[in-house]
Amino acid sequence: MKTINTRKTIRKYTNKDVSEDLLKTLLEKAERTPTMGNLQLYSVVITRNEEKKAQLAPAHFNQPMVMGAPVVLTFCADFRRTTLWAENRKATPGYDNFLSFLNAATDALLYCQTFCNLAEEEGLGTCFLGTTIYNPKAIIEVLQLPRLVMPVATITLGWPAEDPALSDRLPIDSIIHHETYEDYTPDRIDAFYTPKEQLEENKHFVEINNKETLAQVFTDLRYTKEANEAISKTLLETLKGQW
Amino acid sequence: MKTINTRKTIRKYTNKDVSEDLLKTLLEKAERTPTMGNLQLYSVVITRNEEKKAQLAPAHFNQPMVMGAPVVLTFCADFRRTTLWAENRKATPGYDNFLSFLNAATDALLYCQTFCNLAEEEGLGTCFLGTTIYNPKAIIEVLQLPRLVMPVATITLGWPAEDPALSDRLPIDSIIHHETYEDYTPDRIDAFYTPKEQLEENKHFVEINNKETLAQVFTDLRYTKEANEAISKTLLETLKGQW
Repeated sequence: MKTINTRKTIRKYTNKDVSEDLLKTLLEKAERTPTMGNLQLYSVVITRNEEKKAQLAPAHFNQPMVMGAPVVLTFCADFRRTTLWAENRKATPGYDNFLSFLNAATDALLYCQTFCNLAEEEGLGTCFLGTTIYNPKAIIEVLQLPRLVMPVATITLGWPAEDPALSDRLPIDSIIHHETYEDYTPDRIDAFYTPKEQLEENKHFVEINNKETLAQVFTDLRYTKEANEAISKTLLETLKGQW
Repeated sequence: MKTINTRKTIRKYTNKDVSEDLLKTLLEKAERTPTMGNLQLYSVVITRNEEKKAQLAPAHFNQPMVMGAPVVLTFCADFRRTTLWAENRKATPGYDNFLSFLNAATDALLYCQTFCNLAEEEGLGTCFLGTTIYNPKAIIEVLQLPRLVMPVATITLGWPAEDPALSDRLPIDSIIHHETYEDYTPDRIDAFYTPKEQLEENKHFVEINNKETLAQVFTDLRYTKEANEAISKTLLETLKGQW
């Protein structure tokens, strides 16, 4: 995993295809990821068809990677397969509850990340689309996901046609806590966030958005309270209908 | 990541310590994992103290790995740091909602899995404790987690003192779907699950539990409807109080 040190999100891909053999091999290797009770509470829908990509694109706010990538992978929390297995084996399943959703979402996300680690080591580029949980209803319809199957992550995948700069990260001391949670004083917030705020690209980002601080770009434009609350409502409704 | 092919959960560890340097290096490398808006919505609490481990153990149903491992890592969905940053920068955050919890839980789980892949490549052994979301309230109290910080995964970590057999996995064709969800007919369920059911260890497992099928061991004993629903209720209550 030496490639992790220079890992970048790739949004542009060459015309070269990702063979089904390679894709299946990587998805199969990723199955070694830990999973609850060895139940493997996940499914992956592979989208290669142009028409299907075009149907998925709006759910991802028409980000160009969906149409531009040879492969789109939708990772789903899936308790349906296990439930059908139980029903076919004189067993009475009870997995239509919030805990079981979170169990399956956990399985799906861990599996997804091992897959990405493996794909990137192979030289492939990936882009994680966080939009999956913003518009799950549209994705459920396009991919025809039945009950107890909920999309939780989408990856666009292909051979890189760009080499973007490495993005910044917070210092590791801002992430870790020893024994108990060490809360963040204003001084520690300054120490951890000032280097990020001082980056030329972030100063530029603040300027073109007519904001005073970088944090305001996030709270006022990218992830607003109003949008978060509205989307939370439809997300919970979709989850209740699907799970 | 050649080690992925032989990856096993490790529950017994040698007395050798995991140095703080190595731990920090691996946690830092894992920061390359994709994260929403580059906000890094996660924190990790490192537990080495024996007394703290003893306090955590009941939350994990006293599984012996918690006391037996030199290091216990609790990965948390964390919107608190970002919220405090915003509040210190004339910005008005709005992240106390379900979408933001799921955003942060996603970040934390992806980060956790990259960490595990890196640690295992280094020769370390890990055990993922799914119990974290079964008793989050107790973990929140022991680790003194403030609002907008929710534990979503726990890893015990150390140098392996055992070499268990590789566990079985479902065939990859049971996991993947092309273009749309290909539902599971009874024939496909049989094809995918019979090899698992025929394993000697699983036959034995059914026998000692006095059950007729392997699925019944899961539905009647390990993950029952009754327990799932009761735990869902307290999990949602804890989440609402914490987030």
